[in-house]
Amino acid sequence: MLVVKKFGGSSVANKERIYNVVKRCIEDYEKGNDVVVVLSAMGDTTDELLEKAADISGDAPKREMDMLLATGEQISVSLAAMACDALGVPAISLNAFQVAMHTTSTYGNARFKRIDTERIRHELDARKIVFVTGFQGINKYDDVTTLGRGGSDTTAVAIAASLHADACEIYTDVDGVYTADPRVVSKARKLKEITYDEMLEMASLGAKVLHNRSVELAKKYGVSLVVLSSLERAEGTVVKEVTKVEQMLVSGVTADKNTARIAIIGLNDEPGIAFKIFNLLARKGINVDIILQSIGRDNKKDISFTVAQTDLKDTLKILEENSNVINAEKVAADEHVAKVSVIGAGMQTNAGVAAGMFEALYNVGVNIRMISTSDIRITVLINEEDADKAVRAVHDKFIPED
Amino acid sequence: MLVVKKFGGSSVANKERIYNVVKRCIEDYEKGNDVVVVLSAMGDTTDELLEKAADISGDAPKREMDMLLATGEQISVSLAAMACDALGVPAISLNAFQVAMHTTSTYGNARFKRIDTERIRHELDARKIVFVTGFQGINKYDDVTTLGRGGSDTTAVAIAASLHADACEIYTDVDGVYTADPRVVSKARKLKEITYDEMLEMASLGAKVLHNRSVELAKKYGVSLVVLSSLERAEGTVVKEVTKVEQMLVSGVTADKNTARIAIIGLNDEPGIAFKIFNLLARKGINVDIILQSIGRDNKKDISFTVAQTDLKDTLKILEENSNVINAEKVAADEHVAKVSVIGAGMQTNAGVAAGMFEALYNVGVNIRMISTSDIRITVLINEEDADKAVRAVHDKFIPED
Repeated sequence: MLVVKKFGGSSVANKERIYNVVKRCIEDYEKGNDVVVVLSAMGDTTDELLEKAADISGDAPKREMDMLLATGEQISVSLAAMACDALGVPAISLNAFQVAMHTTSTYGNARFKRIDTERIRHELDARKIVFVTGFQGINKYDDVTTLGRGGSDTTAVAIAASLHADACEIYTDVDGVYTADPRVVSKARKLKEITYDEMLEMASLGAKVLHNRSVELAKKYGVSLVVLSSLERAEGTVVKEVTKVEQMLVSGVTADKNTARIAIIGLNDEPGIAFKIFNLLARKGINVDIILQSIGRDNKKDISFTVAQTDLKDTLKILEENSNVINAEKVAADEHVAKVSVIGAGMQTNAGVAAGMFEALYNVGVNIRMISTSDIRITVLINEEDADKAVRAVHDKFIPED
Repeated sequence: MLVVKKFGGSSVANKERIYNVVKRCIEDYEKGNDVVVVLSAMGDTTDELLEKAADISGDAPKREMDMLLATGEQISVSLAAMACDALGVPAISLNAFQVAMHTTSTYGNARFKRIDTERIRHELDARKIVFVTGFQGINKYDDVTTLGRGGSDTTAVAIAASLHADACEIYTDVDGVYTADPRVVSKARKLKEITYDEMLEMASLGAKVLHNRSVELAKKYGVSLVVLSSLERAEGTVVKEVTKVEQMLVSGVTADKNTARIAIIGLNDEPGIAFKIFNLLARKGINVDIILQSIGRDNKKDISFTVAQTDLKDTLKILEENSNVINAEKVAADEHVAKVSVIGAGMQTNAGVAAGMFEALYNVGVNIRMISTSDIRITVLINEEDADKAVRAVHDKFIPED
């Protein structure tokens, strides 16, 4: 069996943790498995490197930034290989050049194009544990690229896909995917299984377990992911195409407080005005989420939409700069909103979920300001202060107790 | 004109120093020159990485050690390229993979085999300052190698040779090569020029200005080296095949206190015994320097030789372990000795130097214990406490005052 394991930065933050990681890998190796281990940079290394760069230049070229940041993972993998060797098990560390992990050329946010398997297979055939740098690649110029924060998950999935691995295990500081944030909902349950689509909705809506792109890639290549705790020995959550074990109507309830609402009031009702506005924002890389359009007075219309709170300042600036094009009466912003979502592949065939969600929110006095849905998700925009209460109420409604 | 510049770790130890280095490179660039800059790891980075490795394993595989250490220079070059960009001059950093600096496979002590020039030339043609990682290479397995301490000098020379550079400037914390250590001999003069051979004798005898291998390589490929201060703007020392400006009889006087003397007393006078002993030491990588063999009493003989003080413990251990083969009456060691040498290409045609040196030492009451000579060097072994006095006396004798 060929297993790809991925450990994040906090799992390799110091000597003890590196040895812990290596021992878990050796357990697998000693069962006769081929083991490839993708590591992130140790603890705060990436932040320290970012600080060094910020000290030198307020606007460092992204190409040089990637060259700098890529050293972090190289340190992790070489130290892990040393630890493995010290425990008497042959090991080797490989960086993006050595594996040949080809990516697009977008520095800081590259995507995998092709991963060569020859070198990794050669080392596995020599019965070595192979430690591979996460988060990085090389582009067609032989330059170092990085995948953006959280990219090591993607590295693990891409390597698993390339090697046709039997399993891809993502070790995190939580022990699986829960039906809701356990800090908010005490009755939250760990899921045994979840579909790729559900996981994608969960990830993009604030459940910070897996990097979204890694789930997309896993779905594309049919790589079974397992989310596990790097600290405990609990069973994790399997992410796959179709779940069988427990076919629940709703798999999870999430809250995303990094949300702000913008209302553009009193727009002329001319064709293409909404397109103009959202095109302006898209060109600056601002993602617009729930959109609501309504007819106002005097043949005017209003458009409301949500953006990430972290994008609010930029959004307002762009709208201000283009006020002559947009020609609205007023732009209003509200930072104190949150998105609460129910997610479940089961709801595709059950229309009652929306009604049940609205009822649960009504019963606890939560006012719904906007609604957005997909095949497997219903999202409502509510006041931020109501978010936790809303999650608990909706969770109680749909998720059966253990 | 194409110039290769090399700056050591202390020259790039922090933000201010990186900017200083970059500004000096920009000055050259703005004269219209092509500029390639070889950098070492920042300040104590290499030592910190060594500590990390020592923390993980007392006996880390050298292949992994090189993988770890190579990150240090990658950090330097990317930060330098950022600083250059911040000053408005296009720059790029390249590591050993990107340049393709091919070395032998000996991890920790690799030698250059071939340096590809295509990528560097491509970047120079685009009018970029090119920052290259010193100290490292790649071997035929695509693995990272390092050249051993001080290897960045060798990188600079090898790149200068490959690119047929017009100049190779080595910036150090001294401003050139002196006729003696200025801390010992107040009248020591900076040399305008020195031959490769003289520099080699100087380097191996304790004048820590240039890495020996870099001088050998410069000699082999006829690369003119200039040793300059990274702090001041003084004229440096040129190292080349033949010096013309000042044909001095003696170019320098050096003292090497990292010396110990071992005497093996009462050996059986059988053929090959000296070979046996020195072969044992050579196999463990211990360099033996001055050797003296003498006939003792009762058909026995004595052999004395010097080793580096840092090798003394290992040497005594090897002699002890092989005492049944060596079969000597006694092994004695003396740590408190020093080698003092006069070096000068001019002495090849002048037999009077040795006599002058012995006279100068006699005049200040320094006792000579052993003597060794080459074409351009005379070395004497004396008591360590006499070293400074001896250097001053010999310097006074041969080096004319400014």
